[in-house]
Amino acid sequence: MEPLNQYLETNKERFLNELFDLLRIPSVSADPKFSQDVHKAAEFVKEKLIAAGADNVALCPTDGFPIIYGEKIIDESKPTVLCYGHYDVQPADPYELWTSPPFEPVVKDGNIFARGSADDKGQMYMHVKAFEAMLKNNALPCNIKFMIEGEEEVGSTNLEIFVRNNSEKLKCDVVLISDTSMISNEHPSITTGLRGLAYLEVEVTGPNRDLHSGVYGGAVANPINVLCDMIASLHDEKRRVTIPRFYDDVQDVSAEERAATAKAPFDLAAYKKDLDMDDVMGEEGFSTLERVSIRPTLDVNGIWGGYIGQGAKTVLPSKAYAKISMRLVPNQSHEKITRLFETHFESIAPKAVKVKVTPHHGGEAAVTPIDSKAYLAAAKAIQKTYGKMPIPLRTGGSIPIVTMFEKVLGTQSVLLGFGLDSDAIHSPNEHYGVFNYYKGIETIPYFFSYFAQ
Amino acid sequence: MEPLNQYLETNKERFLNELFDLLRIPSVSADPKFSQDVHKAAEFVKEKLIAAGADNVALCPTDGFPIIYGEKIIDESKPTVLCYGHYDVQPADPYELWTSPPFEPVVKDGNIFARGSADDKGQMYMHVKAFEAMLKNNALPCNIKFMIEGEEEVGSTNLEIFVRNNSEKLKCDVVLISDTSMISNEHPSITTGLRGLAYLEVEVTGPNRDLHSGVYGGAVANPINVLCDMIASLHDEKRRVTIPRFYDDVQDVSAEERAATAKAPFDLAAYKKDLDMDDVMGEEGFSTLERVSIRPTLDVNGIWGGYIGQGAKTVLPSKAYAKISMRLVPNQSHEKITRLFETHFESIAPKAVKVKVTPHHGGEAAVTPIDSKAYLAAAKAIQKTYGKMPIPLRTGGSIPIVTMFEKVLGTQSVLLGFGLDSDAIHSPNEHYGVFNYYKGIETIPYFFSYFAQ
Repeated sequence: MEPLNQYLETNKERFLNELFDLLRIPSVSADPKFSQDVHKAAEFVKEKLIAAGADNVALCPTDGFPIIYGEKIIDESKPTVLCYGHYDVQPADPYELWTSPPFEPVVKDGNIFARGSADDKGQMYMHVKAFEAMLKNNALPCNIKFMIEGEEEVGSTNLEIFVRNNSEKLKCDVVLISDTSMISNEHPSITTGLRGLAYLEVEVTGPNRDLHSGVYGGAVANPINVLCDMIASLHDEKRRVTIPRFYDDVQDVSAEERAATAKAPFDLAAYKKDLDMDDVMGEEGFSTLERVSIRPTLDVNGIWGGYIGQGAKTVLPSKAYAKISMRLVPNQSHEKITRLFETHFESIAPKAVKVKVTPHHGGEAAVTPIDSKAYLAAAKAIQKTYGKMPIPLRTGGSIPIVTMFEKVLGTQSVLLGFGLDSDAIHSPNEHYGVFNYYKGIETIPYFFSYFAQ
Repeated sequence: MEPLNQYLETNKERFLNELFDLLRIPSVSADPKFSQDVHKAAEFVKEKLIAAGADNVALCPTDGFPIIYGEKIIDESKPTVLCYGHYDVQPADPYELWTSPPFEPVVKDGNIFARGSADDKGQMYMHVKAFEAMLKNNALPCNIKFMIEGEEEVGSTNLEIFVRNNSEKLKCDVVLISDTSMISNEHPSITTGLRGLAYLEVEVTGPNRDLHSGVYGGAVANPINVLCDMIASLHDEKRRVTIPRFYDDVQDVSAEERAATAKAPFDLAAYKKDLDMDDVMGEEGFSTLERVSIRPTLDVNGIWGGYIGQGAKTVLPSKAYAKISMRLVPNQSHEKITRLFETHFESIAPKAVKVKVTPHHGGEAAVTPIDSKAYLAAAKAIQKTYGKMPIPLRTGGSIPIVTMFEKVLGTQSVLLGFGLDSDAIHSPNEHYGVFNYYKGIETIPYFFSYFAQ
């Protein structure tokens, strides 16, 4: 690997500058006003794949944003790795909480601050650069295919259709994804389980128009109060979700596995200090690590209604809204949970209001094997560059496409993520370590090398 | 009154045009970005008072927006009427629900549509025009003083200081206020009771930054969920407020008075139909009219937190907020209730969150006498112009200054309001009947005439 490492060292600055160019494009897929920028980011990735030496690079149209495909087939008899990533990012608001503008990347204290730096532009782009390095140094030992989408942050709506329609072209021996994080740079880990997701929006309507709270208050259902009542009732005093049959399909995790998880390095005091909280809160009978990995949850991601400007307005509003998502564990169907939520939410609405439930998107939970050739190649690659074997760990986030790849392509994934939980993805001041970016580019070729053996 | 009525008839169009000019000024006192317009409205009212013939007209500075004073002292031995009104208006949002722009007044179906048309520019300006009419026709039978403020919609913060500092100048025999409504044009009524108000804003902080709901969801207090829990707990299953000692000072209303209220014309089916609700909702054991008049309430006027843009964002937010107000009944102190709320709200916060409570403003409930000379003059004036005696009625809104005038000036108020409950004050499409505007200008001189006798 000597010439390859030399190449990485020589091109370090350019690799960072190119990522910065990509981070400057505000490719927020959730917000129509950034639509042009999402397309611009797709074009950028396409050009860089071509420049790196990929063949048959194309922007494949979908009903939403395009999927970039590219490949390098060196030898049909060699194994094939499908690299998946995404070029779209989460919305950046609230803007005022960013210490530097979200789409003007800067390095501070060894971290690249920008929306998408860790999720997933920085991690996706490591693969483009690792590929370039392998190819330029005649060190690509496998066939490689790229599939980079632009709708991951809005539920990968069109990806499954694309994968189904192109299953022959996408045939591979493993799907390699860098869109997860490690425990720490000192405790490298590989994600082996991901929670699923069911995301819905609810609307509660009381009176047909905003009213004066003095004239009507006390006699008319206030949709905000009612929405709060309804949301509060979704958890019991043990912080268990009260939707009937919500836990029906949750598999109990064995005492052995729970004991293994309990051994993962975790410092509750440091966790609370980092988040400046006097206490954690979650389902009775489970540890913090278990609550975010093996247990399903229900969180309100957004709520709004009535007067939210400065000062006071004595309005009794007509409507109140919330965005609510549930994280799911293996064996829970997001479609079934979505239906259970809808039925339950409508059933608990008092007669004095009207309720509308709109499903946004969802995805199944996933567990990846830890004894496959691909997993072992990933573990050895990390051992090589980090100096220690990674810990296999289930985590709380969702990458629904992992289950989809298994279902449609029949291929398992390896989640070779280089981020850290503290990267503040989906939050203001998202960042990604410069160390992690380069470490990823250095580690990926080892994965290819071990996987080809 | 013949020449006076003739004068009103001749100047009708101009009276309406002048009101339109005032309604075009977006004098929203709650929002700093309209600050210049609030001053502009003050200037407008000052000029019109001078033009109408008032003496010693001045914009009196306060720590907030100025108070306009003006007077006409015809004879020290005659009774003096102090006309109070306000030139500021409620915020107009949500703008998209207005069928015509809130600050471009138009007449549709006999109603003036504009923010402030009923509350209170339209009603306040009737007094300026009635005064002009009386003066120009040598028909002013009493001394008159004007005090028009610009902070009513934000709690009249600086009015009490002004009244205290100018109690000699403001000396009067009655305070005349048109800032309330009648049952209907067919059932004229005079408001004799008003609820008080305690308005607060709450902030709940969970983690110190927005988090990814997959990575942290289930283990960390979500401030939106917690805020919903806390708000839900503020009512019990009988829709009674659960704040300890909240009802301590509420005086029971006698069976006789409740029986009298029950006789007021009220059609529950029509009420529900008008608001498009399948049911009403309120405190067990009380009728709809009682719930909005003799009972205190707690309503959330606004709530916000997390992602409220288009689409989906899986954020676990750091903070959630709500604006909460309580309508109070006579004998409840808004300061005491504010303290009880603060103490209770902080006490029910789980350890995993931090809570901040900020009082906005408040005011005491008021009951006005129905046997005073002023009340009888008002009732006779309405009987003259509407053809029937008005019904005395307690209503739900708050005009905290009524209690303040009594306390500081020792003077009772008469609430000679010409609006209707259906005027949609504080809501999109606020309107005020052209009929009501002219009827007010016609009725006010009769009040002066009867009160002078």
